[in-house]
Amino acid sequence: MSKEKVVLAYSGGLDTSVCIKWLQVEKNLDVIAICGNVGQDEKDLEWIRQKALDMGAIASEAVDMRAEYARDFLSKAIWANGKYEGVYPLLSALSRPLISKHLVEIAHRYGAKYVAHGCTGKGNDQVRFETSIRALDPDLEIIAPVREWDLTSRESEMEWAAAHDVPVPTTKKKPYSIDDNLWGRAIECGVLEDTWNTPPADIWTMTADPVDCPAEPETVIIGFEGGVPTSINGEKMELLDLIIKANEIAGRNGYGRLDMIEDRVVGIKSRECYECPAALLLIEAHHTLETLCLDYETLKEKAKLDVEWASAVYRGLWFSQNRFALDAYNAYTQKFVTGEVRIKLCRGGLFVDGVRSDYSLYDKNLATYDEGDTFPHEAAPGFIELHSMQHRTWSRVQGPGSGLQKID
Amino acid sequence: MSKEKVVLAYSGGLDTSVCIKWLQVEKNLDVIAICGNVGQDEKDLEWIRQKALDMGAIASEAVDMRAEYARDFLSKAIWANGKYEGVYPLLSALSRPLISKHLVEIAHRYGAKYVAHGCTGKGNDQVRFETSIRALDPDLEIIAPVREWDLTSRESEMEWAAAHDVPVPTTKKKPYSIDDNLWGRAIECGVLEDTWNTPPADIWTMTADPVDCPAEPETVIIGFEGGVPTSINGEKMELLDLIIKANEIAGRNGYGRLDMIEDRVVGIKSRECYECPAALLLIEAHHTLETLCLDYETLKEKAKLDVEWASAVYRGLWFSQNRFALDAYNAYTQKFVTGEVRIKLCRGGLFVDGVRSDYSLYDKNLATYDEGDTFPHEAAPGFIELHSMQHRTWSRVQGPGSGLQKID
Amino acid sequence: MSKEKVVLAYSGGLDTSVCIKWLQVEKNLDVIAICGNVGQDEKDLEWIRQKALDMGAIASEAVDMRAEYARDFLSKAIWANGKYEGVYPLLSALSRPLISKHLVEIAHRYGAKYVAHGCTGKGNDQVRFETSIRALDPDLEIIAPVREWDLTSRESEMEWAAAHDVPVPTTKKKPYSIDDNLWGRAIECGVLEDTWNTPPADIWTMTADPVDCPAEPETVIIGFEGGVPTSINGEKMELLDLIIKANEIAGRNGYGRLDMIEDRVVGIKSRECYECPAALLLIEAHHTLETLCLDYETLKEKAKLDVEWASAVYRGLWFSQNRFALDAYNAYTQKFVTGEVRIKLCRGGLFVDGVRSDYSLYDKNLATYDEGDTFPHEAAPGFIELHSMQHRTWSRVQGPGSGLQKID
Amino acid sequence: MSKEKVVLAYSGGLDTSVCIKWLQVEKNLDVIAICGNVGQDEKDLEWIRQKALDMGAIASEAVDMRAEYARDFLSKAIWANGKYEGVYPLLSALSRPLISKHLVEIAHRYGAKYVAHGCTGKGNDQVRFETSIRALDPDLEIIAPVREWDLTSRESEMEWAAAHDVPVPTTKKKPYSIDDNLWGRAIECGVLEDTWNTPPADIWTMTADPVDCPAEPETVIIGFEGGVPTSINGEKMELLDLIIKANEIAGRNGYGRLDMIEDRVVGIKSRECYECPAALLLIEAHHTLETLCLDYETLKEKAKLDVEWASAVYRGLWFSQNRFALDAYNAYTQKFVTGEVRIKLCRGGLFVDGVRSDYSLYDKNLATYDEGDTFPHEAAPGFIELHSMQHRTWSRVQGPGSGLQKID
Repeated sequence: MSKEKVVLAYSGGLDTSVCIKWLQVEKNLDVIAICGNVGQDEKDLEWIRQKALDMGAIASEAVDMRAEYARDFLSKAIWANGKYEGVYPLLSALSRPLISKHLVEIAHRYGAKYVAHGCTGKGNDQVRFETSIRALDPDLEIIAPVREWDLTSRESEMEWAAAHDVPVPTTKKKPYSIDDNLWGRAIECGVLEDTWNTPPADIWTMTADPVDCPAEPETVIIGFEGGVPTSINGEKMELLDLIIKANEIAGRNGYGRLDMIEDRVVGIKSRECYECPAALLLIEAHHTLETLCLDYETLKEKAKLDVEWASAVYRGLWFSQNRFALDAYNAYTQKFVTGEVRIKLCRGGLFVDGVRSDYSLYDKNLATYDEGDTFPHEAAPGFIELHSMQHRTWSRVQGPGSGLQKID
Repeated sequence: MSKEKVVLAYSGGLDTSVCIKWLQVEKNLDVIAICGNVGQDEKDLEWIRQKALDMGAIASEAVDMRAEYARDFLSKAIWANGKYEGVYPLLSALSRPLISKHLVEIAHRYGAKYVAHGCTGKGNDQVRFETSIRALDPDLEIIAPVREWDLTSRESEMEWAAAHDVPVPTTKKKPYSIDDNLWGRAIECGVLEDTWNTPPADIWTMTADPVDCPAEPETVIIGFEGGVPTSINGEKMELLDLIIKANEIAGRNGYGRLDMIEDRVVGIKSRECYECPAALLLIEAHHTLETLCLDYETLKEKAKLDVEWASAVYRGLWFSQNRFALDAYNAYTQKFVTGEVRIKLCRGGLFVDGVRSDYSLYDKNLATYDEGDTFPHEAAPGFIELHSMQHRTWSRVQGPGSGLQKID
Repeated sequence: MSKEKVVLAYSGGLDTSVCIKWLQVEKNLDVIAICGNVGQDEKDLEWIRQKALDMGAIASEAVDMRAEYARDFLSKAIWANGKYEGVYPLLSALSRPLISKHLVEIAHRYGAKYVAHGCTGKGNDQVRFETSIRALDPDLEIIAPVREWDLTSRESEMEWAAAHDVPVPTTKKKPYSIDDNLWGRAIECGVLEDTWNTPPADIWTMTADPVDCPAEPETVIIGFEGGVPTSINGEKMELLDLIIKANEIAGRNGYGRLDMIEDRVVGIKSRECYECPAALLLIEAHHTLETLCLDYETLKEKAKLDVEWASAVYRGLWFSQNRFALDAYNAYTQKFVTGEVRIKLCRGGLFVDGVRSDYSLYDKNLATYDEGDTFPHEAAPGFIELHSMQHRTWSRVQGPGSGLQKID
Repeated sequence: MSKEKVVLAYSGGLDTSVCIKWLQVEKNLDVIAICGNVGQDEKDLEWIRQKALDMGAIASEAVDMRAEYARDFLSKAIWANGKYEGVYPLLSALSRPLISKHLVEIAHRYGAKYVAHGCTGKGNDQVRFETSIRALDPDLEIIAPVREWDLTSRESEMEWAAAHDVPVPTTKKKPYSIDDNLWGRAIECGVLEDTWNTPPADIWTMTADPVDCPAEPETVIIGFEGGVPTSINGEKMELLDLIIKANEIAGRNGYGRLDMIEDRVVGIKSRECYECPAALLLIEAHHTLETLCLDYETLKEKAKLDVEWASAVYRGLWFSQNRFALDAYNAYTQKFVTGEVRIKLCRGGLFVDGVRSDYSLYDKNLATYDEGDTFPHEAAPGFIELHSMQHRTWSRVQGPGSGLQKID
């Protein structure tokens, strides 16, 4: 009788390599290893694919998910100016539902009953993987070997690996934990666990040190259509290519470093460093264009909904009713977020330099203090009279005018 | 019989100088001219005070409002991370209620029936002055001469001035309109009215050009007690002095420039440039400390309330029920926002470098991936099971698992 | 040379009848009078149409807007559970943009330069008409004769009418001001202006007095498809007919009376009585079905967005970016709000009696305490452990566990 | 050596009676049984106290928590118009943190290391107890015997009870699960688990059937001071007594029944019936008074914060940073929510009949359409001009006036 199958999200590292073997040995499963290219630094997926097969996986696939990542996930993150707790552009939170979608599709293709991931029990990614997978196929069963096994130290894990013919890394364990993709890099652990420690210089690889950057500012013009970046400096390109280019430009100017305390889904705070040159540049440009193309009420409402969007995505609710509904709100608002934003980058600093749109709600004739002013100045007293009406009434009965309340 | 009195907010400039005379000539009022020191660049208030008397004001006072401004207004803006539309730190919006409070108090002291300001009919400040004044004393009558008179061009205004012995400036009109105080400088008009024009270099006076800044980063440590900055680099100081110092430090490192499109209260968009070195530095530091000392729910709720706070203050509702109530919310949250934030400034860029607090909700033992980990890993599967429960149900009846909804 | 034309929203009453003549006499305009049927009590629109022609209108049209009102406006109000300040179902606020749309279309058809309405200067409807008209055609000019003329008392208005051959009502002025349509009736003024006065019995015409209602409860089943009511007691019908029937059913059972204090757009509070049997019944049924078909996050977010939706519509922003975007959010959420709600009405009281849907997110197997329970009880401890984690940490450093904060 | 101690929340029912014994037998603990009087129907706490001692509890206390419940918990629920998902007045959610507080205090008094409750693994109350207890004393350990033991059927539980000298109920198991206290009764399970079933008549005990109610409306006047009810029909009384009386009055008039689908903390929907005569009456009266005493911005903001408050309390976050902060917001807003609300109750229906306050923001002179009108009608055109300004601009560049967007 044939064994049941499991589709494993495979990175090529020690943890998921041990998973490949462990799922065979301990769970008696046929393993299909999937390595997703989401734009991470590691480029040799073919080598990873082969490594899985060498360890007994019955199949292994390297899937280039980058274009889909940009088109279906990052575009919506730009729409939502997606930054969790106002800071973190959600780079890992966005890639997990994408990978989950592929895991589920591949599980269906192979007739697998199980899906597995290599996350530990204290991170966010386990939550995102499992919530996404359950939302996509509530009947697939999920295995999280790292959470389940008792290989609690690196030593015991390496022993188990050696005993089961899993290639053991000969280099020392890296001092940090890294996750990276098209949308940036996350660095945590090690000395960063003391929140007062300065982030060491060697954690940064996508961004130049401000001290070493070119002295002169670099100007970059981002063009948008319907809220999605479509050109850099006038050159049209696919979003994937545009993000790659934006990472280069912002990165060489030292822009995109973050150091923050963040609230994990599992109820703890962690200290995270990120570098996200393209993400922060594109979101900044996008928000600037929104201020030109959206009205006051929409900007205010959307600012609060952007908070909700980022929280939902962070917490693994990409495939959920509310996220879909929020994106329907966003989709309407983005229709006319079309135009250009000019930005200057200089040794770590970003400066908005100009913005224009054919759908600009800025009307120079209304705004100008020079000739050509068409603003109805005579309307102001009436406006203010009614604008302040209720506060005047309040003053008389409850506020300073009533003597009941002292204003300090 | 004695004339009625009017208290005028007087800046010493052409508009309000003409106001002094116009209120006497056209309204037959005794004028009391008040010049508030809110930390603006113009320092010689004694000269301004005398100028008012020279033009026939029956009294003139120069009032140093700076310490009160910092203590009662800017501290609350820091609590609220106050940035309108996510960008503008409200520098003019915060000073108007303060000045209004003094105008009302002085009107009471002199028994004046009227208060007057020199704002035009298309700006925000008329709204803020009048709403504040009505909230403080609903019976005072307000006169806005510039909105009322028909001196619609600078030429006609200068002619009127010359004809009525109002000193006429001999220098050319400045190409921009400026408002400045302790919390920053606002620059608008002129070439800035085309949103695609680069802000000219000569508009910036508080911040060094990033190209000319010191090459080496400058580290600054901001200490907070109860959400209010109380020290810089370990040196305790009053908030007023601290802001002055923060303006210097951030300014010399090129930090604090803004260029934005903003929605005025009167229903139009305008393009504004700001430089607010201290404001942006202190808000950034404050928000960083909040991420350490406030929990997830509070941070999320407060992010949305901060949007409301800034909108309310921008729209002139400082003295209003809802702003007072929002500050009561903030006051509770700020009790334990006590600690230090280390920041590096470098040629226009700001980098958070570390944060600590005796009331930190970050628990290294829960967060660490090294020895000493006390996080209950075994709790994760149960947590995720229930966290994803409703999305699993949704999938079965409405979502991907139901076949009713295609996920792209 | 031909005169310019004005399209007037005409009700047949004294105010708008005087308007017809006044626009000819004082403004020298050709008047096109439009009388919209939005389901108000007054049914004889042909008589009204003729009356306008008799007074010199060059054209007059009676337009049955009821089906469009139900289909394009009330359906969306049901989606949004639209109640301003939690109470008022927006009956006048919803009809004004509809009428405005017709006024603008007819103005285009006749080549009219002006649109006119008969609202006074202190109500909401002037705001809604003018904001809607400007949003639909920013170049049309608006005239508000009642606000402009100096016929400030009913006596002077009747004199002017008599002098200009405007038919003068022979009956006494009604003691209340009424506005009514398909979605309910609004009653204000007279003795109601004292907020402590009991609403007189004679103001109610759509709803039976609870004391006189049938003693036995009446059960009604409302069926919904995609968030819109499509059947009553199993009988499919158009929304227009369904609302008419719902008004009858709820009305005869004394359900639908409201007495509230509400904040007008113009900055004052007013006391309003409403009777809205269908509106309140359908919204109650709709919200009940939503609790079955929407998940927790969506219900919570939508509850807050419903507040925003009602405020926007109340303030005349039907044709605005944010309302359109909010309806895009709603449209997604309503896809599966399909099912039935059974309600009992009894002498003024409404009782939800049952609800079902093919897309119900209620899962009996998860919920039951009897056999067949599939809920993973063993997941609870882990869930709670992480759910309470941050509050435990908070307790230790800031809360009761720290001794720093006393809990009363 | 002496045993460790556990403080158990004891109700006298089968589950917690078995707990008393089980904690001794299986956990080798000394049990202190606490029975809280929160106003539930069961009045004979002395008998319950003795029962615990008879089963070997080393101590047992019956604590009257009712006055504290009203004063410290229900008053704040009234402030917040606390209704979860717009319907449920949180009766169980409010009592759990109160009981938790007493459990923790008693644990401290007895030097107990453990606290125990009798909740199952699929309800909300386990979450509320444990989150509250951890927030009050993060070092206390919590035991949930019912979740832990394997007595999964009533039969096995009764066998265990019989074998261990726990008194076994001789009556049949009730067909519903009930929780009740001062703030109402919750009824779930049995036939209610089918959402389409009519709630059986016998589940209701606090409210008369509308059909059997007095024919004549009963008028009741609720007086408030600072947002808290302080009198009924002019008679001053403590909140506890007032709630008892309000339950009688509303109950005999058939008011206060609810039937809803609600989202549990543990990720499932359940169907719940509630009867909460006092809660719903007092919240309705309170909200009515708020509409008189709070301004537009505050009412709108508070409506959204009330949603958050109810969600937080439902989810067990009574003792949490954000709930305390929300109550600080509320505390400010309630200062002047002082006045009277007159309500008519009639056979299940509630009708607001009048409201007044010395701090009323309703100004009859501004509102009236009769003589004495002081509203500045002439201010309206200017107000509307600027109110609609941005929508006019939007129309020209993106909206109907641009031809780019079709309005249906």
